[in-house]
Amino acid sequence: MDKDTLVQQELSRRNFLFDTGKIIAGAAGIAAFAAGSEGLVSLALAKGASTGKWPWPYVKLDPQKTADIAYEEWYRVFCGAAVINSVFSQLREKVGEPYKSFPSDAFVFLEGGMVGWGTVCGSNAGANVVSNVIIGPRIAGPKSEHGHSIGSDMMQWYSDTSLPVFTPKEPRQKTAIIQTTSESPLCHVSVGKWMKKSGYALASPERKDRCARVAASVAYKLVQDLNDWKDGKYDAKSHWAPGRDVGITAQQNCTECHGDKVPSPPMAAK
Amino acid sequence: MDKDTLVQQELSRRNFLFDTGKIIAGAAGIAAFAAGSEGLVSLALAKGASTGKWPWPYVKLDPQKTADIAYEEWYRVFCGAAVINSVFSQLREKVGEPYKSFPSDAFVFLEGGMVGWGTVCGSNAGANVVSNVIIGPRIAGPKSEHGHSIGSDMMQWYSDTSLPVFTPKEPRQKTAIIQTTSESPLCHVSVGKWMKKSGYALASPERKDRCARVAASVAYKLVQDLNDWKDGKYDAKSHWAPGRDVGITAQQNCTECHGDKVPSPPMAAK
Repeated sequence: MDKDTLVQQELSRRNFLFDTGKIIAGAAGIAAFAAGSEGLVSLALAKGASTGKWPWPYVKLDPQKTADIAYEEWYRVFCGAAVINSVFSQLREKVGEPYKSFPSDAFVFLEGGMVGWGTVCGSNAGANVVSNVIIGPRIAGPKSEHGHSIGSDMMQWYSDTSLPVFTPKEPRQKTAIIQTTSESPLCHVSVGKWMKKSGYALASPERKDRCARVAASVAYKLVQDLNDWKDGKYDAKSHWAPGRDVGITAQQNCTECHGDKVPSPPMAAK
Repeated sequence: MDKDTLVQQELSRRNFLFDTGKIIAGAAGIAAFAAGSEGLVSLALAKGASTGKWPWPYVKLDPQKTADIAYEEWYRVFCGAAVINSVFSQLREKVGEPYKSFPSDAFVFLEGGMVGWGTVCGSNAGANVVSNVIIGPRIAGPKSEHGHSIGSDMMQWYSDTSLPVFTPKEPRQKTAIIQTTSESPLCHVSVGKWMKKSGYALASPERKDRCARVAASVAYKLVQDLNDWKDGKYDAKSHWAPGRDVGITAQQNCTECHGDKVPSPPMAAK
């Protein structure tokens, strides 16, 4: 069997596994993708900031309260900054620095899949900012590995879950909000599938409240995961390592854009 | 002519305009998409950090030097953090705080389109972090509007340009690096088109050097735009406002995933 056929089968298998919601891959994660050993240098070489020492101090937070904050903050700073502020606004009060110096509101640009371009959902991006700023980047060593894991797990959970799962105590929209499963971490795909099923326009109050509830749903899970990490009992769930497994950085819904003709990327020599 | 036909025509027109590299839309930008007036509240209500006052102090930087730093930093922290550090490492020296307190290395997670999922290219994300952290989010008022504009312009330029355009003085790979135009701000699409044309695998030294040069190319343009903004002569070039123009957060390459059957999103009542 030739290489292309093997890759094709792997991509098809992943789509099947994705469809059944049972992605099971190996360990290693993105490290298999990225620049390799030259990326795993000591932070002694780092040109990073004075706050580049991880993990940052963290105290366990209440997921419900955090989600309530995220829901309200969405209407001020939108999805990405809402998720960031739902955690950091509490840590600024409970811990102080370095959280007081982190410019959370600058991340309004994560809205609409980054300045409206519909790429990664700002809630996923905001969750990655929070987990990696608190726990640290993977190059910081074993104590920081779960900054990456929690971020990747959020992308997986977001893609697999019928969202939103969080309902605010005092919702701005009293009507029931339809749930949809995006099968993708992208804003365009997530919002598009919801709009198609619900029939509501992007500019509708219902769509806005749906996105505010999605941000709150993500904030709720984010704090659950951070609390587990703080307790030393967080286990990475997603082991999606596309660079290693399918030869290109990728989502798991290949056929959604490619149809039956998923390209076979050139593979490294064995 | 019914609504769906009009939307279809608009999407087709945009694809045509995109193909000819001549996107011309109105003003307004993402504000037309986002949560509307409730989002445009005074920052007096902000729960943001103590650094939430914009713009941050900025001194003009040398694009060539910045690109050289980004190229070298890619091999330490990868695309997103390389772009951020190429600017902030210089401002930490020339300005000091608040740049010293910004945890640039935490943004390693932007690699591979965010923890390897192939969404937005980390170079685009890193450029948006830099422009919005320095100039501020659009909700901070007129003095901060170009944080958003420079970020969106980068997405447009990245999509339209045959990359990489920057060649380092001392490249790690001596062979010529093939250029490709992504027509998308996504890592998966950008890297995939380059891999298809070049024939090099994701794990190849050539692919890594291509991405390091793309990060450097983005860093070069980013500092050119920031310097123009500092001189008060920056004019936003991209006015892509998909929420207003096509009714959903989106890229401009609709047919690349949807083929001839671009869905018509439900539109708001007039």
